[in-house]
Amino acid sequence: MKEFEIELNNLTIPNRNFHKLAMERQSILTKPKGSLGRLEELACFMAMWQETAHPKSDKAQALVFAGNHGACDQGINPFPQEITLQMVENFNQGGAAINQLALQNGAKLKVILLAGGKQTSDFTKGPAMSQEECLDALNVGADAVDLNSDILLIGEMGIGNSTISAALCLASFGGQSKDWVGAGTGSDLRGIDLKRKVIDLAHSVNAANLGSSFEILCALGGREQAAICGALVSARKNRIPVLLDGFIACSAVAPLSPHKGIFDHVLVAHKSAELGHTLLLKNIDKVPILDLDMSLGEGTGAAVALAVIKSALACHNGMATFAEAGLTVQ
Amino acid sequence: MKEFEIELNNLTIPNRNFHKLAMERQSILTKPKGSLGRLEELACFMAMWQETAHPKSDKAQALVFAGNHGACDQGINPFPQEITLQMVENFNQGGAAINQLALQNGAKLKVILLAGGKQTSDFTKGPAMSQEECLDALNVGADAVDLNSDILLIGEMGIGNSTISAALCLASFGGQSKDWVGAGTGSDLRGIDLKRKVIDLAHSVNAANLGSSFEILCALGGREQAAICGALVSARKNRIPVLLDGFIACSAVAPLSPHKGIFDHVLVAHKSAELGHTLLLKNIDKVPILDLDMSLGEGTGAAVALAVIKSALACHNGMATFAEAGLTVQ
Repeated sequence: MKEFEIELNNLTIPNRNFHKLAMERQSILTKPKGSLGRLEELACFMAMWQETAHPKSDKAQALVFAGNHGACDQGINPFPQEITLQMVENFNQGGAAINQLALQNGAKLKVILLAGGKQTSDFTKGPAMSQEECLDALNVGADAVDLNSDILLIGEMGIGNSTISAALCLASFGGQSKDWVGAGTGSDLRGIDLKRKVIDLAHSVNAANLGSSFEILCALGGREQAAICGALVSARKNRIPVLLDGFIACSAVAPLSPHKGIFDHVLVAHKSAELGHTLLLKNIDKVPILDLDMSLGEGTGAAVALAVIKSALACHNGMATFAEAGLTVQ
Repeated sequence: MKEFEIELNNLTIPNRNFHKLAMERQSILTKPKGSLGRLEELACFMAMWQETAHPKSDKAQALVFAGNHGACDQGINPFPQEITLQMVENFNQGGAAINQLALQNGAKLKVILLAGGKQTSDFTKGPAMSQEECLDALNVGADAVDLNSDILLIGEMGIGNSTISAALCLASFGGQSKDWVGAGTGSDLRGIDLKRKVIDLAHSVNAANLGSSFEILCALGGREQAAICGALVSARKNRIPVLLDGFIACSAVAPLSPHKGIFDHVLVAHKSAELGHTLLLKNIDKVPILDLDMSLGEGTGAAVALAVIKSALACHNGMATFAEAGLTVQ
């Protein structure tokens, strides 16, 4: 825990020199200035973190963290928790959406089931995790990062975790539970109402322990959320740009938001169809790369957005300059 | 010309049976229903046109049509027309953005310079093309389509063609020239004002010859615009789905819009940063796949969007069903 807090208070900073170098290169490539729009921005972002004028995305790692939640005892989910383990098995057999997308777009997939799928404690009765449990999950996340990666994609799987996400956003950014609770996977209006009540109860029960990032994670988070935070911080330490999937992945790191600049190395892959994502994106000041009405999780949005990043770098590194092409104007 | 009109009045129709089959498959794949959002829609769209429950995108052809415009004599462009030929040379040498993106995302690129780069007539003095010139360009476009393609990407290059585009949109959808004229590549406010005046003049000079799709193309189009129309219609005849790039590619086919259903086999790749595109998309009733603030043309947006389509089909064809994965609920 100390190490985690120390890291958060001594963040690796972006190298603006390489951002500038990359922008200079963009300005001499054979196209009107700025005409590749977001692709130019993405290339410069990658350059800034990788500290090179020619950033790469060949070695892309996709981490999918899976966990179960004690909050499910409150009947918040229309699906049983076995689904989490069955989906992990599906990942391992190569049958899920993320398997196809990681393969299609060139990411190396690693799936990690936290604590063997054991559920956290019910956060309506006390903290979801002890400090030790949370720290274990943080470390699993940090250790899972391949430090040779050019970019890290982060996704998740966990029955019930749209409720966990809404609880984390509420504690991190304020507002009311209704601002953060959506249908998740298949909840009807009664289910959404129940989710709100469960979240409000969890907040009042844990009210005394929602101070630091770590406290919020322990009280209201889940193991996959803690692991995502660990991976994000480890990537930061090693200057690896992070591509977060959608609502669940973004809300997992919401508790870190008081640490200024913590999301500077982070891109958000897509705008989720889940209700709270728009407000969450506003709070973490990110514009997602894609908006394809996806809401699956698993890192699927990140794996599609990786193709955009690879496209951006292909242009950045491969295009001829005006001088090379012998063009008369620029 | 007759053949073209006959084709337009006898359009190949989508096969809804395969759309239904593809939707049925989507509903038994291991994910919550609808959670892949637009990716599911794209897979079903491809199935409907290719007439198979397992659509493909392996054989993707990217056609880039280039041409020059007599309207440039009116000083509407800050760049000289030589740039069109120099960029075609850049395409042929592999140095442009479209070269990198076609390679990165798996499209076979073919660049066609219309009439050797010879400019059309100045449309402020009469029709831009004679019927014969326009028909020639239409046929070049139609003949360029590889009929073995799974999908056809269409892009363009032509100094001055944002003005041509605005003129075509105005004639096709009405409104005022200011609704359709943007900065294009590097026009300032005075340049934009000049573009409007030139378009208004072209409309009044050609007012008597803006009846049919073909007449509008002759009067106000350019060779690359006519070629794009030819390619789009040829693809339709052969059930090849078309992925149009941005503002210029979409406005090239605007004159075809009176023919009901003509864009049923068409996807729009991205929302261009160019002003008129939003209104144009509304008129042709399309929601672009990407919104990345791009405005380069060349088919670059289409080549990035191809990665989304490939992602969609990778999921559609590769994912396990609930039964195959032994999942207990669906």
